[in-house]
Amino acid sequence: MEKTDIRVIYGDTDQMGVVYYANYLRYFESGRNEYLRARGALYRDLERELGIILPVVEAHVDYLQPARYDDLLVLETTLGKLGRASARFDYRLLRHATLIATGHTIHACLDRAGKIHRLPASLTIRLQPPGRGAG
Amino acid sequence: MEKTDIRVIYGDTDQMGVVYYANYLRYFESGRNEYLRARGALYRDLERELGIILPVVEAHVDYLQPARYDDLLVLETTLGKLGRASARFDYRLLRHATLIATGHTIHACLDRAGKIHRLPASLTIRLQPPGRGAG
Amino acid sequence: MEKTDIRVIYGDTDQMGVVYYANYLRYFESGRNEYLRARGALYRDLERELGIILPVVEAHVDYLQPARYDDLLVLETTLGKLGRASARFDYRLLRHATLIATGHTIHACLDRAGKIHRLPASLTIRLQPPGRGAG
Amino acid sequence: MEKTDIRVIYGDTDQMGVVYYANYLRYFESGRNEYLRARGALYRDLERELGIILPVVEAHVDYLQPARYDDLLVLETTLGKLGRASARFDYRLLRHATLIATGHTIHACLDRAGKIHRLPASLTIRLQPPGRGAG
Repeated sequence: MEKTDIRVIYGDTDQMGVVYYANYLRYFESGRNEYLRARGALYRDLERELGIILPVVEAHVDYLQPARYDDLLVLETTLGKLGRASARFDYRLLRHATLIATGHTIHACLDRAGKIHRLPASLTIRLQPPGRGAG
Repeated sequence: MEKTDIRVIYGDTDQMGVVYYANYLRYFESGRNEYLRARGALYRDLERELGIILPVVEAHVDYLQPARYDDLLVLETTLGKLGRASARFDYRLLRHATLIATGHTIHACLDRAGKIHRLPASLTIRLQPPGRGAG
Repeated sequence: MEKTDIRVIYGDTDQMGVVYYANYLRYFESGRNEYLRARGALYRDLERELGIILPVVEAHVDYLQPARYDDLLVLETTLGKLGRASARFDYRLLRHATLIATGHTIHACLDRAGKIHRLPASLTIRLQPPGRGAG
Repeated sequence: MEKTDIRVIYGDTDQMGVVYYANYLRYFESGRNEYLRARGALYRDLERELGIILPVVEAHVDYLQPARYDDLLVLETTLGKLGRASARFDYRLLRHATLIATGHTIHACLDRAGKIHRLPASLTIRLQPPGRGAG
């Protein structure tokens, strides 16, 4: 699990005085970037070095409590599942002990030509939490 | 069903050359705004006149094909379901005959104090497609 | 001059209940896209066919009156100046007769290698308003 | 002067592979938030406690070098000038020693009714760098 701090700026809020619902997906992106970075697998390098991309094929958010301007949120990102050619990330967004939102994204693994491609072993070995079998 | 034209601008794309995944939720918002407007129920008026808001409690997107800069997309918005104190909208985003994405949002009906509130009859009667029973 | 309609969505506003200041630059982008399109010069084609890009090197906005959710704004885009290797666009954003904001962007003309490149004559001849000399 | 770290996410970039020009204004907002916070003057409190808001009346950006995905940028925010009822912030955005962009924003001081209001002394005394006279 990876924790990412997120400070809500004005530009994230809407006129209801809460974070606009699309911006949670921006937060989720920060979370999985940091998840990858902490495991030595920069998303930037996946494209450059392994020749694969991981486009989002599904995104889901459950909005439980509003988040507000200047809140310091903590996003917990976990690897939900590694398939042969896909990966799922799960997200929990909190303000202290209050759960603000949960959600997930599912990513396909594609090569540069846009074809489905098996997740490289050099990647999965880094992402796999120790002691867990293949997803 | 309501159709909304969406022209993809540079600001909607990311460096993969496709529309950034969070921006689909912006498009969906345009779609349900136009859905309401076409039925004489401006979202703005819901807040001002009926004293209710319809915050998103769930959002979901399935990304099927990438959308690109300058694409002229058509978003089809339908009312998926009207509950006692909730509403669901369904979305289909197309580029000509190509289905780009599908998704839905679920909205709670709250009063100004943030309490769950029955959907006003003056609203549901406008949103209800003719010949359909209560959801 | 080119007129572009802009409908303000929730996602454009912030918690002050007005359009967030960065989003004016998104509107300006829509305006110059439509300016180019109306003259048969798609920005997309500049990159693909002429091998040039027109990145923004300067942007300026004067905010005169707030714009609000659901406002139907009209953006007037004009070509301010064509230099040898640069172009300036001027913008006026209105709600009916009320001037909401003015601004400009200045763009350099670069080739694919990122070097400054003379604006192609095939482009300037299209953009030049009739009866006006070279900028 | 206040330094703010900014990590560029995918959602900040456009299909040219660089940070979209409007997003620099989002970064600038983060910078002035942190400037105020470091001086014990939360922007949130200005509205709540002093009854004033500081809307942007002018924004300007000079784009010098592109910023890219995953760049770790440093934003330097300084108070450019304090007027009777206005404040100016200046920004310098860097990637290591490379200057990416400079810019400024000018803010009016308004009361809740939207009238111009003298900057409260309790605020200016905090913002004023030591040893500098009134702007």
